Amino acid sequence: MTQTLTKSDDTLYEQVVSRVRDLIESGTFRSGEKLPSVRKMSQQLKLSVSTILQAYRILEDRGLIIAKPQSGYYVRMRRWQPPPEPEMSRPTVVSTHVSVSDQVLRVLNATRDPQIVPLGAAIPAAEILPIKQLNRMMASIGRRSPRIGAGYDLPPGCKELRVQVARLAMESGCALAPEDIVTTCGGQEALQLCLRAVAKPGDIIAIESPTYYGILQTIEVLGMKALEIPTHPRDGVCLDELREALDEHDVRACLFVPTFNNPLGSLMPDEKKKLLVELLAEYEIPLIEDDIYGDIGFGENPRPICCKSFDTQGNVLLCSSFSKTLAPGARVGWAAPGRWVKDVSRLKLFTTLANATLPHMAVAEFLAAGHYDHHLRRMRKLYAEQVDRIKQAICEHFPQGTKATSPAGGFVLWVELPEQVDSMTLHDRALAEKISIAPGPIFSATEKFKNCIRLNCGYPWSLEMDRAMGTLGRLAREIM
Amino acid sequence: MTQTLTKSDDTLYEQVVSRVRDLIESGTFRSGEKLPSVRKMSQQLKLSVSTILQAYRILEDRGLIIAKPQSGYYVRMRRWQPPPEPEMSRPTVVSTHVSVSDQVLRVLNATRDPQIVPLGAAIPAAEILPIKQLNRMMASIGRRSPRIGAGYDLPPGCKELRVQVARLAMESGCALAPEDIVTTCGGQEALQLCLRAVAKPGDIIAIESPTYYGILQTIEVLGMKALEIPTHPRDGVCLDELREALDEHDVRACLFVPTFNNPLGSLMPDEKKKLLVELLAEYEIPLIEDDIYGDIGFGENPRPICCKSFDTQGNVLLCSSFSKTLAPGARVGWAAPGRWVKDVSRLKLFTTLANATLPHMAVAEFLAAGHYDHHLRRMRKLYAEQVDRIKQAICEHFPQGTKATSPAGGFVLWVELPEQVDSMTLHDRALAEKISIAPGPIFSATEKFKNCIRLNCGYPWSLEMDRAMGTLGRLAREIM
Repeated sequence: MTQTLTKSDDTLYEQVVSRVRDLIESGTFRSGEKLPSVRKMSQQLKLSVSTILQAYRILEDRGLIIAKPQSGYYVRMRRWQPPPEPEMSRPTVVSTHVSVSDQVLRVLNATRDPQIVPLGAAIPAAEILPIKQLNRMMASIGRRSPRIGAGYDLPPGCKELRVQVARLAMESGCALAPEDIVTTCGGQEALQLCLRAVAKPGDIIAIESPTYYGILQTIEVLGMKALEIPTHPRDGVCLDELREALDEHDVRACLFVPTFNNPLGSLMPDEKKKLLVELLAEYEIPLIEDDIYGDIGFGENPRPICCKSFDTQGNVLLCSSFSKTLAPGARVGWAAPGRWVKDVSRLKLFTTLANATLPHMAVAEFLAAGHYDHHLRRMRKLYAEQVDRIKQAICEHFPQGTKATSPAGGFVLWVELPEQVDSMTLHDRALAEKISIAPGPIFSATEKFKNCIRLNCGYPWSLEMDRAMGTLGRLAREIM
Repeated sequence: MTQTLTKSDDTLYEQVVSRVRDLIESGTFRSGEKLPSVRKMSQQLKLSVSTILQAYRILEDRGLIIAKPQSGYYVRMRRWQPPPEPEMSRPTVVSTHVSVSDQVLRVLNATRDPQIVPLGAAIPAAEILPIKQLNRMMASIGRRSPRIGAGYDLPPGCKELRVQVARLAMESGCALAPEDIVTTCGGQEALQLCLRAVAKPGDIIAIESPTYYGILQTIEVLGMKALEIPTHPRDGVCLDELREALDEHDVRACLFVPTFNNPLGSLMPDEKKKLLVELLAEYEIPLIEDDIYGDIGFGENPRPICCKSFDTQGNVLLCSSFSKTLAPGARVGWAAPGRWVKDVSRLKLFTTLANATLPHMAVAEFLAAGHYDHHLRRMRKLYAEQVDRIKQAICEHFPQGTKATSPAGGFVLWVELPEQVDSMTLHDRALAEKISIAPGPIFSATEKFKNCIRLNCGYPWSLEMDRAMGTLGRLAREIM
């Protein structure tokens, strides 16, 4: 289709082609989106309509864009080959005291510096969160009730929030009453209190491998021991291996993230969740179910059901929060601790006494007003796109042989680099270039996953992000 | 001075006298305050000026009011005899696992019911707190910074708040830098984190006797043991007895409330604080200093200095909060944990991860704006009056032989009833009459103080409060 061109024409076309490619690469125009019309582009670039048309045809020939009759030019849906997925983890199933990592602090501290590209800690971008709306609600509650905050929001905590959480839990198949729920200072406190309710220092807690570093650190600061169970990046912890571990070790409790696991993004299928709950009921071992990402699956409604929905004996302690969906800084979490509800309530009383009243009431009001569902739909779409975009960048920039997960929800990617790449070194070199990533070993009690990293996809794609991914790829190759 | 009266005049005068006495008794007009003028009273009661004048003269004869030339009639400054003070406590110095008391929960839960007269939990009345101002500040910060709350306020926490706390600490003689401070979800979390930083389950913690039940419960939920040290209601824990206890027991840490102790209101003198810090440095035993009431002494500025001010080795972990002075529901506390600052910061990270951003920023702004000092001056005056008023009511209504503390600050009174009065029974009967009190045994690890109660003086005096004190006195006599 391309015509014979003079040299100078050729250069001109290539300049336009290169310009449009940049716009696509940087995500300004994304897969499937319409490009500016030929006329508009000609105005913007101050070039003739025929030059633009010719450049668009070259881009079409090269498979980057497609023409739709009577409509215009579109960015071609990427036919990129996603990277292969990692295998199931193979930790040595030995219970260990978790060794503290200053590394975790470095990953978290990087979030304070707006100059650092935030691919480390799992934090959503501010613009994705309804912060303004929540702050307005807090202001309005404060005005309407000038005595709010003069008393303590004692455990089990804000009644209205517990009512709303109980309603929300219906979507994950759980029949909860407000009195089954204890509200907490974020999800971290919920996990801590549930662990303390069912286990004591020295006890063994079975966890997924890899698992969220906050879980490992909590187990460590409580003086408990972690037992890593092999976990599949698609459907979660392996039940056969779990049963073996329960037979061989004196496991006091399991703490799993079955729905959109952090860092794997894995989703345990319903049937497997049922089997897990039955297995643990048989062994009389409580399950602490961390559902913090449960509301942000990439599929449509209804969201996946929880293990808790199969629990007939109060053996599952369900924990969640609104830190990943509404506002990390509001510190609004909750636990539905089954038959330990009174213990968790009492532990809460003598850990932090009460929650910050206004933020908890504002979240309750946000839910009661029916805003949550709409917000989630928008958020799920954005996260799915962002995860996809970062995965494309991995294909483009990372060394041959790199693997990445196919998360079913949440907003983190688990990346397995070639074996020679030491992720701690990569972390340090990346941070020197103002890029934060989470190195694999902090997701293991035994410092496994030396060649893995977790990437946060909570931020919208940008040219800066594209450059950062390019830099990470280069650094990885340099380390190899 | 009284004239001969006809019978009916007599009745009329007595009615007015009784009316004015009620106004004084109920605290509508308090000790030293000016009564309505004779003219005004005559208008209000629709009685002749001469009748009112005659009644005022009778009240003057009876010593209830005094006339000041060219000014009017005033409520006479009470020349009441305060009740005697309790003796120093004599606990058996044996370390014990604290037995849990549902009683604590009942005292706290009573605060939820506005129908219950709030003499139980140590909570200030809403109208004494600058809640409106803080809520307005929160609203304004939320408007000005629409991304506030989108991130985590990670430990050591809000920089501006730490700057303000460091400045405030100068008033108690402490030279703190912002980096010496970790902000927490209220004072309770500060105490919990400091205890966990210096001791582990099974360790012995020396405490005052009696002491705040929250301290006892925290020691219990952490699986530690409490050792009660004899404590004087005027100047705090007995150092000789403490030294003996340190010699005999393997004490891991001390947790004291040296300034305006709860429940005693005692104030350890500066010199004794210095000796305490030196003693513990000698034994290499850390001191957790709970200073939550430190800012609300009844004396003038400057406020008493802290033990921390004598600490040259980072051996004192100072804890406080703004729950008693600004807003319980804001959950703004802090610790200056000396050489354990990094440990406390890390424990905070894996206990509650972060604080609620907006309330912490609002308190920082309140302090930075210079409002705190003025607010404290008003608050101290109110609390001193309220404590005094409740003490008067004890004299009027409680059985012969009742003793009460002379707190130097704070807003609680410790009352020792005659030995036959069981305070648990008194608590239950009072609650049935919609009055909450805190029974003595919850302030002891060994359920001592069976005939003691703590009364909250955080609420302004009212007729309802007067009636409640009358009812408590009657119930106490019934139990005897």
